[in-house]
Amino acid sequence: MNEQVLRTIDSRRDASVSGLKQFLSIPSVSTKPDHAADVRRCAEWLAGQLKSSGLAAEMRETGGHPVVLAKNTHKPGRPTVLLYGHYDVQPPEPLDKWVTKPFEPAVRDGAIYARGAADDKGQVWAHAEAIAAWQKNGGLPINLTMLIEGEEEIGSENLERFVRENRETLKADIAVISDTNQFARGVPAITYGLRGLVYCEVFITAADHDTHSGLYGGSIPNPANVLVELLATLHDRDGRVNIPGFYDDVQSLDAEERDAWRKLPFDEASWLKDLKLDQTFGEAGYTTLERRWARPTCDINGLTSGYQGHGAKTIIPSTASAKVSMRLVPNQDPMKIVTSFERTLRERCPKMVKIEFARHGLAGPVLVSREGKAMRLAAEALTEGFGAAPTLIREGGSIPVVALIKSTLGIDTLLIGFGLPDDRVHSPNEKFDLDALHKGTRTAAVLYAKLAEW
Amino acid sequence: MNEQVLRTIDSRRDASVSGLKQFLSIPSVSTKPDHAADVRRCAEWLAGQLKSSGLAAEMRETGGHPVVLAKNTHKPGRPTVLLYGHYDVQPPEPLDKWVTKPFEPAVRDGAIYARGAADDKGQVWAHAEAIAAWQKNGGLPINLTMLIEGEEEIGSENLERFVRENRETLKADIAVISDTNQFARGVPAITYGLRGLVYCEVFITAADHDTHSGLYGGSIPNPANVLVELLATLHDRDGRVNIPGFYDDVQSLDAEERDAWRKLPFDEASWLKDLKLDQTFGEAGYTTLERRWARPTCDINGLTSGYQGHGAKTIIPSTASAKVSMRLVPNQDPMKIVTSFERTLRERCPKMVKIEFARHGLAGPVLVSREGKAMRLAAEALTEGFGAAPTLIREGGSIPVVALIKSTLGIDTLLIGFGLPDDRVHSPNEKFDLDALHKGTRTAAVLYAKLAEW
Repeated sequence: MNEQVLRTIDSRRDASVSGLKQFLSIPSVSTKPDHAADVRRCAEWLAGQLKSSGLAAEMRETGGHPVVLAKNTHKPGRPTVLLYGHYDVQPPEPLDKWVTKPFEPAVRDGAIYARGAADDKGQVWAHAEAIAAWQKNGGLPINLTMLIEGEEEIGSENLERFVRENRETLKADIAVISDTNQFARGVPAITYGLRGLVYCEVFITAADHDTHSGLYGGSIPNPANVLVELLATLHDRDGRVNIPGFYDDVQSLDAEERDAWRKLPFDEASWLKDLKLDQTFGEAGYTTLERRWARPTCDINGLTSGYQGHGAKTIIPSTASAKVSMRLVPNQDPMKIVTSFERTLRERCPKMVKIEFARHGLAGPVLVSREGKAMRLAAEALTEGFGAAPTLIREGGSIPVVALIKSTLGIDTLLIGFGLPDDRVHSPNEKFDLDALHKGTRTAAVLYAKLAEW
Repeated sequence: MNEQVLRTIDSRRDASVSGLKQFLSIPSVSTKPDHAADVRRCAEWLAGQLKSSGLAAEMRETGGHPVVLAKNTHKPGRPTVLLYGHYDVQPPEPLDKWVTKPFEPAVRDGAIYARGAADDKGQVWAHAEAIAAWQKNGGLPINLTMLIEGEEEIGSENLERFVRENRETLKADIAVISDTNQFARGVPAITYGLRGLVYCEVFITAADHDTHSGLYGGSIPNPANVLVELLATLHDRDGRVNIPGFYDDVQSLDAEERDAWRKLPFDEASWLKDLKLDQTFGEAGYTTLERRWARPTCDINGLTSGYQGHGAKTIIPSTASAKVSMRLVPNQDPMKIVTSFERTLRERCPKMVKIEFARHGLAGPVLVSREGKAMRLAAEALTEGFGAAPTLIREGGSIPVVALIKSTLGIDTLLIGFGLPDDRVHSPNEKFDLDALHKGTRTAAVLYAKLAEW
């Protein structure tokens, strides 16, 4: 390892935070059409930063939001690393729950608060700073290709085609993604499993306009009544998902894995306290970590119908809708699950109303080997960067690109994340610890050195 | 009857529409705190109009929105009539469904379109014009007390106390309300029954903030999942309301009444067509009119939870809520029903989440005798005003003040409404036929003459 690189990183702690603040102040909310210009501006800004580190960086069109593609000078005989990340963020709502505004990054109590702080701008920024430090000190020791996309939060709609069409450009020996978490503060982690995702929207419609609940109530279909009855069928009394075939392909946890997870220093009490909850809830027969990492779910993410204002409005709504998503585990197939979900609800829906669906994203689950040289090198990098040996974990979230990279480029992905479980990603007051930013930057720098030896 | 009064009414058709337009252009939405000033302005405007007809009219405070109280010169030996109406309106949302703006009244195809056109400003205005015509021609033949309130659409929260405290001022022999409908175009009606109302809001809360559905899904309670499961228990498989004791006090329809309703010229096909529906839906064993007029209901009026924007946001919502109302029939007791509703949901709610309630209005059902002199006089007035004998009907809506007038002032109410079933009250594109306005005004004028003979 070139120690000068680490010294550069240490000397740039404040400068790094300033750069991240700029990154976080661009509201690159990919799901909202009225933020499309902000998303593009964010890509431009990031490409400019990478260029100033001496990379060949450019914004590339995808049909949707652009990707940022960047490379150092590739030299023969060195391994090629594909670094994936995303610069788009979740919507910030509900805005009134933020202590400081979501796109006005604020540092307090050793963390930076903003939408995207941990997911994923802060983590991308750790790599960008590590790369800059290497470039200032003789250049990266590996061939690097960066692919930073703008549609991760909306299911990477256009990424698959882009990756397929640019297979040669993206060709690499291994992929690295920092979009996951440490297991706990001071316990860095390598993630070897992710859940998949199916995200649907269900629309029920009856009369073509809202009607007076006194004049019509009891004599015409109420789409809100129908919707809740349909959604209530999605779980059985034991909290299991009640969709035919849903569990058919679920891979059971083996004893070894369950045993390893039981030994992890998971502090359930303080985890609950952060949520202001008294108790966990989930499928019977599994621990909280097992439920989060290795069991599939079906959750309502949003409900909309009728009058939502102050007080009373006595109407039978014309329409009612729900956003419903399912987290999948190996070896569930997203296409099979979404098909069964839609068919089942259609069958259960009374014929007197209209039922329609929209799909907002499919992602396969991921499970990679816990063995191998790359895993060992990553563990060494984390040990150096964080001063503690990493633990091996799964996570409950989804990173659709991992399955895509495997199927398209034929390579595995190292999931080395610097976030913390209490970072409130997708929630108000998302944050990223400045300590995680610094140690993550050091880890990334070391990782590039380690992978050079691969 | 003083024929000059009717001639005055006929000569003022255009002037009457102009006045109503002014009335309708004031957005007196009582449920929204930010419209409080508009509500007050509307009361002031109305009091001014009544003053210019020579009534002693004033705005009176209630603790909430003011009432308009007006009287002509009361003379001994004449019957006293209490005319009740309301100048507040329902919220206009969804705004994008209106052809012309809800508070920019527009005349087309022989009707005036605006929020409140039929419910209840247009009908109050018919009386105001009839009163003005009498006052121009020697004065009203009865003692009139007008009580026009501003909180009908929010459950008349402060009216009960006002009526109790002003019992002497409001003392009358009979009450008249025009806030109901003709049975059909050309078929005027007297309404002898109304449904009651219980309007509640249910709030389910779990974690104190929205959480990432990947990182938390499957391991913590989802309030939206809980809410739909709770709401789905509100009906059994046959569409009957599944709250203990709900049907205990329901008065059965007698054969005579059912028979009379079957003979009414109800055109179900065109009624469905106006809603763009293929079929009715309701409790088995009852006709559509029976379901609407004489059977209780439980309907969701609004659902709110989690992400409601475009596309996907992968969160477990922190909270989920529903507005739920029940229409009651004789002899259901609103207090007994709301208590059972809340207790039942509380019992059915899993202890892992918090459940809370808000009440947005209670109203008793109404059923008055179809016999008696007042009914006969009202029928004669409608026959003269509309050129057709009225039919006797019930309605499915609620007018809380009718039960209040009975219990507080000890008098019955004549429900003589001029609206039409397709007026879309509480919905976008609410209207009031100009023909109904004119004939209603004539009817009101004749009714005052008839009641003078009582």
